[in-house]
Amino acid sequence: MPRFRYQCSSCGQRFRREEVRYLCPQCGRDYRPGMPLTGVLEAQFDYGAIRKKFRKDKPDWSLFSAVEKRFFPPIPVGNTPFFQSVALGDELGFDSVWIKNDGLNPSASLKDRASFLVVAEANRLKERTIVAASTGNAASALAAICAAAGKRALIFVPQNAPKAKLVQMILYGATVVPVKGTYDDAFRLSLEYTAKRGGLNRNTAYHPLTIEGKKTVGLEIWWQNNWRVPDAILVPTGDGVIIGGVHKAFCDLKAAGLIPRLPRLLCVQAEKSNAIHRYVETGCYENAAHPDTVADSISVSIPSNAHLARRAVLDSGGFSITVSDDEILEGQRILAARTGVFAEPAASAVVAALKKLRGSKRLLRKAQIVLLITGHGLKDVEAAMRSIALPAAVEPALAAIEAALEARSAKGVR
Amino acid sequence: MPRFRYQCSSCGQRFRREEVRYLCPQCGRDYRPGMPLTGVLEAQFDYGAIRKKFRKDKPDWSLFSAVEKRFFPPIPVGNTPFFQSVALGDELGFDSVWIKNDGLNPSASLKDRASFLVVAEANRLKERTIVAASTGNAASALAAICAAAGKRALIFVPQNAPKAKLVQMILYGATVVPVKGTYDDAFRLSLEYTAKRGGLNRNTAYHPLTIEGKKTVGLEIWWQNNWRVPDAILVPTGDGVIIGGVHKAFCDLKAAGLIPRLPRLLCVQAEKSNAIHRYVETGCYENAAHPDTVADSISVSIPSNAHLARRAVLDSGGFSITVSDDEILEGQRILAARTGVFAEPAASAVVAALKKLRGSKRLLRKAQIVLLITGHGLKDVEAAMRSIALPAAVEPALAAIEAALEARSAKGVR
Repeated sequence: MPRFRYQCSSCGQRFRREEVRYLCPQCGRDYRPGMPLTGVLEAQFDYGAIRKKFRKDKPDWSLFSAVEKRFFPPIPVGNTPFFQSVALGDELGFDSVWIKNDGLNPSASLKDRASFLVVAEANRLKERTIVAASTGNAASALAAICAAAGKRALIFVPQNAPKAKLVQMILYGATVVPVKGTYDDAFRLSLEYTAKRGGLNRNTAYHPLTIEGKKTVGLEIWWQNNWRVPDAILVPTGDGVIIGGVHKAFCDLKAAGLIPRLPRLLCVQAEKSNAIHRYVETGCYENAAHPDTVADSISVSIPSNAHLARRAVLDSGGFSITVSDDEILEGQRILAARTGVFAEPAASAVVAALKKLRGSKRLLRKAQIVLLITGHGLKDVEAAMRSIALPAAVEPALAAIEAALEARSAKGVR
Repeated sequence: MPRFRYQCSSCGQRFRREEVRYLCPQCGRDYRPGMPLTGVLEAQFDYGAIRKKFRKDKPDWSLFSAVEKRFFPPIPVGNTPFFQSVALGDELGFDSVWIKNDGLNPSASLKDRASFLVVAEANRLKERTIVAASTGNAASALAAICAAAGKRALIFVPQNAPKAKLVQMILYGATVVPVKGTYDDAFRLSLEYTAKRGGLNRNTAYHPLTIEGKKTVGLEIWWQNNWRVPDAILVPTGDGVIIGGVHKAFCDLKAAGLIPRLPRLLCVQAEKSNAIHRYVETGCYENAAHPDTVADSISVSIPSNAHLARRAVLDSGGFSITVSDDEILEGQRILAARTGVFAEPAASAVVAALKKLRGSKRLLRKAQIVLLITGHGLKDVEAAMRSIALPAAVEPALAAIEAALEARSAKGVR
């Protein structure tokens, strides 16, 4: 039995890894620009073999990896902190709230996991150039991992992409092409480019190993949680690949007989970027016409992995919820002030969502709940500045400082 | 035997932990604002007991900790990646270059380690407020750890402190007092404040556990390096507490008979913030009159821990070196492009220093060299923007993109 086979998530057909690279040859043909991907491939492992070989006292994670370890890029990714915050649980009204802080990856987001595995695949295939369309974290992540691996990252971005995110990619040495158009234009052009000129396309969900890479965060949660399955995981959701990856992790573990059940996956979207949310709620898919949210990492018109994201929520017995920008920024402040974790707005959406669920019958108070923090707050300092006030300067004398602090205290200001 | 005793680094007198809190009662009196601290205390453990009890197959790091584990704040700090970069070694002309990436701490700098231990001490002493003067990373770190521990952080900053750094502290819920004056004014006022109003002062080196906290990065390097002592560690140096902490780690290990020798500690400063460098070279101390460098985290006029920093360099057989701002920004680009690590300018100074040492007899090509990366590049995106150019936007058509890439390639631009 080979390491794994690809299986089409639409028609179920199986392929050897050498037979396909991106979408299912049949179902992928149905993909039209402007719609979610069809024919996304999933890696299916020999779960019987994993069941026999996997040992908790000496876990061999390579059993779950679609790429052999010898191809891995020389930069550590993952192994991020997982810990309980009693204070946050008290604040939000839940007994057991845990944080998986994936902002502490090298380029400061969970997307490093996907880029890591795709670059490993590029090593295996001896591809020198990896191409992606992105406006933010995925591109930074690809640029970082390509830098470590000595690969060329070619990144198409819409011309209005935020400068601060471009800085990171360019510093890592990526070739960045700002396109006069939208993200959808950049996405389409990156596909045209690799079709004609070659290189490996890392577009999210389009390359099936993006899902496999993101899967590792689910495996880590299980391990760090002392081999227990949490009751629920709240996942910030834009294009739907992260929630698809988390789902895949627990499906793999269940198929291998290592866990008895899946955690409930809760899809968290911004109110104005809610295509997957509506798809989950109604069963009918429609693009988000004008996505607009402070949480830029989950601001998506056409979520590429909408189909698998919906399946992840329904299959796990989870549900979907949306939050407003004000709630997101409040969630960012609550998380920082109660736990010491500074998360980007997209990641803060899960805190806002949990706050909204207080007292709801949809999520029990005593459940073990994991908040998946997907990116660091330093990725977008401007957003955080929207929600705080800078205090006025004080004369350099102790008496003046004491007076200022007393005045602030009297006003209820810190 | 108690956990440890404090020993004055100036006069050698020993104290029980309950007898002193900050400087040596005698030698600390000599401290005058405007000069480095005198009478800095060092924790001396029962090294014979450590020798007997410490086991590499089940390391108990609490043997080296000045505060009991039960007082630790509920946020994981440290355990950051340590790895070799062959590509960086090739670029810089050394055979074995390793990276300790401490930018991947919760608040994105090594200073979390010091704040973690001081907040643990505040838990032990039942102090609710922790006070510090800082302009940047130390204050963010204190704010983050205080948030996790439910403590109040009171932070004095000069009024011209960069806004982005203030955002982080305020979001964590710290009480921030901008002072109309310099960092030295803020430092003095924070001492006056705790002297009169109480609370625990966390000023760097002034509170001896800041050194003990930073020590943990040295212990981790030894462990992650398979219990071997590297030949040299390059340390970005501002106030001198980090290099003092790394030195203390290896001194503790040597005193416990666990290692045969110290690594050589290389002090790296910015050309225009070089008080410790000159002190090492000449033996005469003088403040840096007008510190001015893009590496704000090591921009210091009066390095509080100058005496112990100099001792760390001389005692370990190391040396000191300075780098220019241009070299620092080039070091930042080299590090990012070769390893995927985006470091703040202060941390990038060690890459610049190693580049300068190529071919020098001061550091052998075959030595095992560790670069201590003390903070993440996302802390200061503006600085990185100084050294890169954003490419022009291109029409959204494949032909236009191919033409643009060929033109850039012909010009030797990525």
